Amino acid sequence: MFYIIGLGLCDEKDITVRGLEAVKGSSRVYLEAYTSILMVQKERLEAFYGKELILADRDMVETESDEILRDADKEDVSFLVVGDPFGATTHTDMLLRARALKIPCRVIHNASIMNAVGACGLQLYNFGQTVSLVFFTETWKPDSFYDRIKENADLGMHTLVLLDIKVKEQSEENLARGRKIYEPPRYMSIPQAISQLIEVEEKRRSGILAPESTLAIAVSRVGGGSGNERIVAGTLAELSAQPPEVFGEPLHSLVIVGKRVHPLEIEYAEAFSVDRDSWRGVASRVYGCRFD
Amino acid sequence: MFYIIGLGLCDEKDITVRGLEAVKGSSRVYLEAYTSILMVQKERLEAFYGKELILADRDMVETESDEILRDADKEDVSFLVVGDPFGATTHTDMLLRARALKIPCRVIHNASIMNAVGACGLQLYNFGQTVSLVFFTETWKPDSFYDRIKENADLGMHTLVLLDIKVKEQSEENLARGRKIYEPPRYMSIPQAISQLIEVEEKRRSGILAPESTLAIAVSRVGGGSGNERIVAGTLAELSAQPPEVFGEPLHSLVIVGKRVHPLEIEYAEAFSVDRDSWRGVASRVYGCRFD
Repeated sequence: MFYIIGLGLCDEKDITVRGLEAVKGSSRVYLEAYTSILMVQKERLEAFYGKELILADRDMVETESDEILRDADKEDVSFLVVGDPFGATTHTDMLLRARALKIPCRVIHNASIMNAVGACGLQLYNFGQTVSLVFFTETWKPDSFYDRIKENADLGMHTLVLLDIKVKEQSEENLARGRKIYEPPRYMSIPQAISQLIEVEEKRRSGILAPESTLAIAVSRVGGGSGNERIVAGTLAELSAQPPEVFGEPLHSLVIVGKRVHPLEIEYAEAFSVDRDSWRGVASRVYGCRFD
Repeated sequence: MFYIIGLGLCDEKDITVRGLEAVKGSSRVYLEAYTSILMVQKERLEAFYGKELILADRDMVETESDEILRDADKEDVSFLVVGDPFGATTHTDMLLRARALKIPCRVIHNASIMNAVGACGLQLYNFGQTVSLVFFTETWKPDSFYDRIKENADLGMHTLVLLDIKVKEQSEENLARGRKIYEPPRYMSIPQAISQLIEVEEKRRSGILAPESTLAIAVSRVGGGSGNERIVAGTLAELSAQPPEVFGEPLHSLVIVGKRVHPLEIEYAEAFSVDRDSWRGVASRVYGCRFD
């Protein structure tokens, strides 16, 4: 059996009991290491599982999938993924490959940011499509995410914005010279994300990402249950003015609040707000929320 | 500490290791028993946890939350929820109540249908807002879900439709007479859901739920990893013509495919289709998918 197992969002204890049993019974265990990160080191996982882990980077998953799947029709092989296995496209590729090789597969689900974001107090069924925000460079500032946020905003829905992660990236020079030397990992911070959002808003000017009147909620290391998650709510301007330690270590995501927000959602999130009066004030003036 | 713990989607082994530790260390453990169901009996959970569970029905959660939270500032109390704790509104109510009582809380996340639905092959970031479909009666056929599906459809996004569950409902007569006698639980089936969708489509006629040309995917008992999940893809007409055993036991959900669907999503889901030629044919004719 080929298992694809979600590890959940934080550390070694977020795996499910079923997932842990599959890991323990597997002859090889791979750890996917590029679409997201866990907040613990590989060694800590290995100690907890009592198993050696094989790191699977993008290269390996894309070019050596047959090696990963080898003998999975005769023995158990596990492939571990941070969050839930269906967060990133690549894992459906692997399942398609396994299907072609007639290898039986089983997916063991877990929490992902797509549902754990509910911790911020906004109702999951009020979210529209999720968007990703990549690091801008001097010459490359892809802004199609703005159209997606606008589609959601026009319907009054919230948007979950996933922030870019760069792991095992090569510099242009190293890439050109074919040198497999990698840059240190980079994780987009909340202020950086907001600065990119506002840069695009200044170009497009539809008003959906107005610094002073758009409410947002930053969620950091959400969902692990390890107690170090951080949720901070405010206008875009307020959030971008916070010192970095307010949000702490990666990973960060950002939620743009939609106009159809219910007063109870605002009340729940108020406990996370930078400035309660401003939070309620904007919700009432701009979002039309009526509080008792 | 007051723990709200997601149990995941299927059985006793879908709890996370962290969640299991919290349960084992708790002096009281409640099992929420009305917004969803697990596919196992309470007794099996109790045997696995080595703990007695207190069933918490809607009545209890709404009127006795202080009893549930009693002493949680001095000892650990766990409240178990099927799926993820933020699937249903009521659990934020409980967290707000705990917050007011200054009881420390921790949420332990898990998979929910909101992310496990990715198992059908459609990409999660292509989903719009989620809708719920309730049992129609002769006199009560609420159809605001149609507006939500249309909003998603107009943007080309997929819609996850959650099907109604009736647990511990009273008949009108018993309700009127104040008799706490409950009807047997009812779970909406896929054919019943589709028949309601088409009933509303015939009234509204915007064409977003056309029986012969709207693609949909039924997902049953998804995400447990226990191997009894069932995924069936086809037009609404094809799905509604299937005998009940094709979908099997509850719980069922239905995904309406949006026009922005990527050919790779169609190809992945093709393996689940009732009729492959029809699946690809409609995807190509109606959804504009181009296959190599």
